Parts: sequence; structure tokens; C-alpha cells
Amino acid sequence: MFNEPYLAPRLANSEPLTPLHFLRRALDVHAGATAVVWRDMELSYEAFGALVRRMAHWLTAQGVGQGDVVSVMLGNRPELLAAHYAVPGIGAVLNTLNTRLTRDEVAYILDHAQSSILITDRVSVGDAGDDWPTPIGTLCSNPGFGDGVDFFADDMPESALDYTPAQESDAIALNYTSGTTGAPKGVVYTHRGAYLNALGNVAALRFDDRTRYLWTLPMFHCNGWTHTWAVTAAGGTHVCLDRIDPVALVETLVAQKVSHMCCAPVVLHMLLEQMDRPTAQRVRVGMGGSAPTPTLINRLDHLGSDIVHLYGLTECYGPVTVNAPSFAPETDADARARQLARQGGRHHTTGAVMVLDADGMPVPADGATVGEIALRGNTLMAGYFRDPEGTEAALGSGIFRTGDLAVMHPNGEIQIQDRAKDIIISGGENFSSLEVEAVLHQHPEILLAAVVAAPDPKWGETAWAFVEVKPDCSTCEQDLEQFCRSHLAGFKRPRRFIIGDLPKTATGKIQKFELRQKARELTDDVPV
Amino acid sequence: MFNEPYLAPRLANSEPLTPLHFLRRALDVHAGATAVVWRDMELSYEAFGALVRRMAHWLTAQGVGQGDVVSVMLGNRPELLAAHYAVPGIGAVLNTLNTRLTRDEVAYILDHAQSSILITDRVSVGDAGDDWPTPIGTLCSNPGFGDGVDFFADDMPESALDYTPAQESDAIALNYTSGTTGAPKGVVYTHRGAYLNALGNVAALRFDDRTRYLWTLPMFHCNGWTHTWAVTAAGGTHVCLDRIDPVALVETLVAQKVSHMCCAPVVLHMLLEQMDRPTAQRVRVGMGGSAPTPTLINRLDHLGSDIVHLYGLTECYGPVTVNAPSFAPETDADARARQLARQGGRHHTTGAVMVLDADGMPVPADGATVGEIALRGNTLMAGYFRDPEGTEAALGSGIFRTGDLAVMHPNGEIQIQDRAKDIIISGGENFSSLEVEAVLHQHPEILLAAVVAAPDPKWGETAWAFVEVKPDCSTCEQDLEQFCRSHLAGFKRPRRFIIGDLPKTATGKIQKFELRQKARELTDDVPV
Repeated sequence: MFNEPYLAPRLANSEPLTPLHFLRRALDVHAGATAVVWRDMELSYEAFGALVRRMAHWLTAQGVGQGDVVSVMLGNRPELLAAHYAVPGIGAVLNTLNTRLTRDEVAYILDHAQSSILITDRVSVGDAGDDWPTPIGTLCSNPGFGDGVDFFADDMPESALDYTPAQESDAIALNYTSGTTGAPKGVVYTHRGAYLNALGNVAALRFDDRTRYLWTLPMFHCNGWTHTWAVTAAGGTHVCLDRIDPVALVETLVAQKVSHMCCAPVVLHMLLEQMDRPTAQRVRVGMGGSAPTPTLINRLDHLGSDIVHLYGLTECYGPVTVNAPSFAPETDADARARQLARQGGRHHTTGAVMVLDADGMPVPADGATVGEIALRGNTLMAGYFRDPEGTEAALGSGIFRTGDLAVMHPNGEIQIQDRAKDIIISGGENFSSLEVEAVLHQHPEILLAAVVAAPDPKWGETAWAFVEVKPDCSTCEQDLEQFCRSHLAGFKRPRRFIIGDLPKTATGKIQKFELRQKARELTDDVPV
Repeated sequence: MFNEPYLAPRLANSEPLTPLHFLRRALDVHAGATAVVWRDMELSYEAFGALVRRMAHWLTAQGVGQGDVVSVMLGNRPELLAAHYAVPGIGAVLNTLNTRLTRDEVAYILDHAQSSILITDRVSVGDAGDDWPTPIGTLCSNPGFGDGVDFFADDMPESALDYTPAQESDAIALNYTSGTTGAPKGVVYTHRGAYLNALGNVAALRFDDRTRYLWTLPMFHCNGWTHTWAVTAAGGTHVCLDRIDPVALVETLVAQKVSHMCCAPVVLHMLLEQMDRPTAQRVRVGMGGSAPTPTLINRLDHLGSDIVHLYGLTECYGPVTVNAPSFAPETDADARARQLARQGGRHHTTGAVMVLDADGMPVPADGATVGEIALRGNTLMAGYFRDPEGTEAALGSGIFRTGDLAVMHPNGEIQIQDRAKDIIISGGENFSSLEVEAVLHQHPEILLAAVVAAPDPKWGETAWAFVEVKPDCSTCEQDLEQFCRSHLAGFKRPRRFIIGDLPKTATGKIQKFELRQKARELTDDVPV
């Protein structure tokens, strides 16, 4: 009775889910509210809508059409945010590029993505200048430089924002993994997935029309974890920072009454070094990449910030699990850290987050048995662009295996034990490099620590610690050895401490594979 | 390039949207948290999940299968909430019935819906007793009565909750309009629409895992505006009240630290009469049906409540627009009332809310030109059950006309001027009965006022006011006449005041058509 044609979806009651509707709604409901703040510029939603319409018109004039790829390589400036609406707004696919990539890396991606056009600016291009890779490099106008296209120019013609994708499974974005090894992979996002992940994030991070979101997280990183769309969905304000400078960061945080920000731990350490008094308002800080340490939690708490711990990958539109606990005021930092060390449970619109054993069966939800995190649901990529085999390998089984190892707690929260290759097995004892790093981060003179497994003829593997110390500190190997002796079981203690700058990816992630390689090389020098 | 088969939706990355996932997520992530409070009972999500699994198993044992209609006629008790998951959880369609319907009205709906089964309790059945209409009437066990099925019995077998609809456009619920005239219509909701409307409400009303939602709104009313699913999506607590009694209402509000409630104005007036001190926590009160008056806003503010003004219809899953302004503390009640008089803008997941003129063109967004509210989008019904012609008439044009008249403000907020038939045209001047009612509600002795148009030989129409005065008050016609004289332009002033109880629908909506009829009858008695 319910399957008859007159009850089937039709124009009046079904339309494709797309983040384009978030902007359309904001233009209806929040036209006068502030959409974007950047340097000394402040744009209402109406003005931001005009920026998007100008960019859409300009793209069409350049010959860009449905299904074409538009590459954009910019810091967190309004044009990059606008591209998140202008590019899908004409049916094209947005490909954002990390501004720290080398010329050759960019050339590889532009070629693989078959980009129709590249929009960038002088700052992002850097020294490469006019020698920038094809296809056409179009420069945004640089304040103070004056060259390139000025999308803020009032006299540029505008396109209407009335495009809706034919299917909600149409592609909206193409994001290349920063993959620590091998060639980058082009992850395809859909309008439906972006819409649902953004709404899941609105609820999980509690965005609303009072939200003032500081863009410390690069928008080129999984479309800013889909917050480029989520903050607009909530009618909040995007506060853009196109360069992470400690002084500017703290000034903006205070002056703009920021309510939310997301970033890698390295930015938080920068913040802690620079800030000397609490913010007037509480700030919710979303962080991923590594679990917050008790020291970090304590210091951020004193500065007026609450941590939300997120976990995700490029393949799942950024955050797939969220840990945003409400603590009683008297909860101490250690207890907070124990809870916040977990990556949390899936957000609303995430389908399933599983932890599987080698046979593909869920591990017991006992908080102890380690398995591999696997995902399924609407916020998983459509596939890898121009890579049917890779797509089949990733998705063909009906679930996506992340390669990350975790336990499942009885309450459905996952806790990462280690990225698949980072678990250390020494003398038959398994332990996590995270635990050792957490101890090292308690040392007052350590800025960043990374622990990896090094081959050992006797124990199989031992932990080695690579540490960056704070400026003007004189910590030596012996100090660290002594410090760990009083904090860690013997088998977990690093056998070597190597002090110096840590190698990082363009997004600030520590490149452990390089450290592992270095440890192997140094081991080879030692006679067995 | 993006249309190739390997990038098409597949098992790993696409699953039908359904509110069933909200419960599954809550069981994963919030198993130990409190799902339901009712009388002296408190159920964790785990215990609530077991209740749902028992009901699902029992329904299957009764022969209920996919596509069958399950009718439930209960107050806001846990079994009704459980039915929102157990019934669609076996692929059946939930038909909730208003407990205030007469025997004949229920018989009509059960027959039209072709219900497989009716679940009710002794309280809802009332005097009809064993003479209850076919099909099978099954009684829930009544605390203190002992008869019927006890879904709380630990020894009932359970079904697994692993059903997912084949299509997200599959029906999830069948809700009959309370239609003030004509036969009730069976409005069909889909899994997709219910999921999206619930998520839109989570964000608009700011539900999260700290939410304690008091069920004053009947769950049988548009599935509790989809909050039956939305509160679960957020991991909040459902505080059930199966009978609206002023004393119990206030006691529960305080004892259960309620954060949210939704209700008709009549319940708010009851609350105001009963409460004598503010709640410890702020309460967000969602209300619809009529705009809040300055008096109501002021008094609720003093009691610790903030009003959210919602607008919707059965055909659009309950609320389609939301007005939840944030006021500076110094904003006075009149300014708040002016803002809160608006029905607001559409929530996230609502497609389009338009105000159209007679030619179907949008009226200017000037806050002055009156048109008809029209809707389109994913949160509009699939159609009217067993009524292809009615469905075609409602949806065939690609938009749904609500019959309600409104203006569109420049910021995209709508403000209802009148239900289509309630606008009053007197001496060529149009005005809204709402405006006159708002004035009357400022009178200290008036509990409820309803203003309708009465035919008038000279002016075409004039306003007549029907008023309920507070207990022990002695307001007379002359007092009211005098009161209006100082507050309203001449053409807007009611020509007659009729004091007495107002006729209301089972959901507490004032039946203006009856008042209009009464006004006509009384006019006929007057010689022209």
C-alpha cells in the first residue's frame, strides 16, 4: 500500500542533499550577520554571497563547467572559503591544495586531477613564481601586491546561485592524501556525504549562530574537516587566519571573541607558549592527530579552553568520532586526560565505527583487546579518483579498514593504541608509543616528542625517543633518561634520546616513518 | 570522469537515512546514560533498547510484518516512545492516535489506515472498555491495573535491532490530521524525512547529551514534532509525562532538571498559574500555534524559561521554521515579543519556505506584503495515504501550499498574519486577528482570547472576541471594551466580547471555525 507511485519521491518532497543549501539558507536567514572576518575585512553573509557569485561567474567565463576540476591553493583567506560554494555551485569539483607542497608535488596533483584551472596567490606560490606548473595558474589579487584577479571587486559580474546537483552522489570535492609514503591518492567526496558530515559536526561541536570559528585548521585539509560548510550551516562566523603566527593567533583569538577552533597539537603548543592570560570566553578546541596530555589539558583549561578530541581520515571527510565530554569543575587533569585520551564515539551522521580482529570480527568491547578501526556509512568517500583498483581494494569488501589500531570501550568509544605501524613490541610486551610520548610531554623543557620502534637484537624492538626541546633549554640525554626512569616501566623506557627538530608533514603531522628510518640507520652502525 | 561506475554509491559508503540509526548510535555511545524517566521508573539506553527489542519481537509474533500499519493510542509513556523504534524496526509503519479522540473517530482511522493491530491502555480507552473498535485492541499493562501486555517484563523474548529500510523513501509513520473540518487525512512520513527533520531540530533547539526533554507535547502529535527521534539522536533524556496535570508538571520540571519542553500555549498558561518560583536551570520552551505575547514572555522569563517559537504542520513533520533569538539581558519584553512574534526562518534541513502571491510569485521580503506560506523539500510528506487525488492536489505543482497567510521579512523570517480564513477585512481595512488577541492577552484577567471575523452589514466584517477569564475574575464586556479602546485602532476593536470557555481540539488548538459559526448565528439574530 505504501509502495504505490503516488507516494514515491517527487519534486515537492525530495531534493538532493548538498552543502550549497547551507549558504542559500544563510542568505535567507542570516543575510546581515557576519559571515567572514579576515585581516581588517568583515563580510556579511550577503557580501560573502556576492563574493561567491562573482567567483562562480568568473569560473564559467574561464570555460569551467560541470564535472571539471578546479584546483585552489590558498591559505585560509575568504576566496578559499568562497570556492567551497562557487565551484560546486556551477557543478564543478573543488580540489584544494596544501600550500606547503613543493612545485613537483603540485604538478603531480594538477596532472592527476586533470585540473581545468589553478587559483592561487603570490604567497602560496612562493619562489616558484612564473615557473608554476600548468594548467593556467591564476593569481588572486594579493593585498599589497596588486596583481591577479580581485574577486572582491564590486564591478565583477555575478552568477545566480541556483545550481543543484542532479544526484546527491555527484562529486563535490577531490582531496589528495598527504600520504607519508607512495603517491598521493585523490579522495572523492560527494554532495550527500559533505552535507551529512557537516551536519554531524554542527551537532557534535555545538555550532550555532553565535559561533565564531577561528580558522587555524587549514581549509585545504579535508575541506577544513567539512567545517567550511558546517559553520555556514549554523549561521556562524568564519574568522580567517591565512598564516599561523603565534602573535597574530593570540591577538585574533582574543579580539574576535572566538568560540571554536580546530588544530593540530603543534598549533596548541604554539598557543601555550604565547598566551599569558585566559580568554574572556570559553573556547572549544577541536584537536586530532594525537591524544591530549594531562599537561596540555591543564594548561588549556587555565587559558579558558575545553578540548574536543576528534579522530578521522581524509577518506571519511575528516572527523568520524568525537569525544566532547562535560567535566564536573572539580575533575582533575589526570582524570580528564584519561577520558580525553579516547577518540570517542561516532557522531550522528556516521554509520558504523568498528574495531575488528584479523578475521574481520569485532573485538570485545572491553577497552583492552586491540583491533583495527574499520568504517562504513554515508560519510565515507566515493572512492579514489582514476583508481578503480585502489577503490575496490578500499571499499569492495563493504567496509573500509583504516590501518589504525584501537580498543573498543564498553561505552562504544574507541581509543587508538597506535597507528598500525607504531605499536612497539619489546621482549614480548606490547606497548604504545603514545604512552611514552605522554610521559615525555610532562617534562618541562620538552616541546614535542615522538617515540618509534627501533630494531634491537636482544629485545626485538625497543623504543627510541626523538625530542624537540624548548628554546634556551639545555636538557640532555642523561636528564631525559633519569626522568623516564621514575615514570616508566623498564621495557617501555626509550633506549635512546635524540634531541633536535622533528620532521613534519605540511599539515604539521610528525613524520614517524622518517624517524623509524633514522633509527634503523643508526642501529645499523652499532655492531651486534 | 566522476560518473564512472567505480565511484557510484555502494555498500561501504551509502546506507539509507533512518532514525533507527539514532537508537543504534545511542546504544553504542550512551548505553549507560538515562534514556527515559517516567513516574518512578528510570531506563538507561541499554534498558530502553531492551524494551524496544521486546516490543519488536512481540509485534512479529502477532503477525505484523513489513508495510503493515501498527496503531498506538497512548499518552506519553515509555511504550509509545519505544514504538517509534520497534515498529519501523521491523519494517512496519507507526500510526499514533490522539488519546482524546472519540470511539467513532478512532474507528474511522483504524479502518482507513487498515491497521493490523492497536496498542492502547485502559486510561486511553476510557469508558469504551471492551466495546473498542476492531482490529484487535491490545492493552498495555496499566500500573495499578495489572491487565494487558507488560512490555517491561524481563522474560519477554527480544528481536535484534538490525533492520534497515531498503529505500530511505520507505514509509515510517502515518499521522492523521486533526483537521478542524472534513475527514482526517493520513499523512505519510518517510525514514529519510524523519531522519532529516530530527537532525534539523537537534541543531535548531540545541539538543545534546545533557538535554533533559520534558514530554508535555504529545508524542502522538507529528511523532512529537520528530523529537521522539531527535532527543535520542542527541543522546539526551526523555522525561515522560503521560497526563498534563499542573502540579505534576511543575514538580517534574523542577525535580528532573528539565532543559527543554515543547507545548501548546494552553499548557504554558497552566504552568504560569501553578509556578511560584524560577527553575534552577534555564528551560528552552518550544511553542507553536500562536505567537507568544509580551506578558507570556515576561512571565516565563521570570520563571527561568526562554521561548523558541516554532511553526509547522502535520504535512511537514512538525516544525519547519524556528525562531530562537538570543536576547541581550537588557532587552525588554516588548522588543522580545516583537522579535518572537515571528515564526522565524527555516531550520537546516528544510528545503524552501516561500510566501507567494495569488499568481504563485514570491511576495517582496518587506515584512508587509501578505501572501501564502508554501513549502518544498525533504521534510515534506510523501503524500496522503489512500488518497492519490488529494496527494496530487497537495504536491503535484511541485510546492505545497499551507493555507496560512504571512509576510516575509527582509531577513528571511516569516511572520504569520493569520491562518488563511482568519484575516479580518473591515471597512476595506485588512488586519490580523492575532494583533487583537495579543492586546487582549495583556489584560490581567484574561486567560485565553480568540478573535474571529463576524459578518457585518455595514463594514463587511468586524472582529468579535471570545475570551476565557481566569478563575475568580469578574471582568465584564464593558471592562474589555474600555481596555481595547485605549490599545487598538477603531476598525480593529472587537464589536462584541463573549465570555466563556473556548472550544478546543484534542491538541489544545482553539477551534476558530466553531467560533466563526457561533458569531454567524448570533449575527443572524440581530435585525439588519
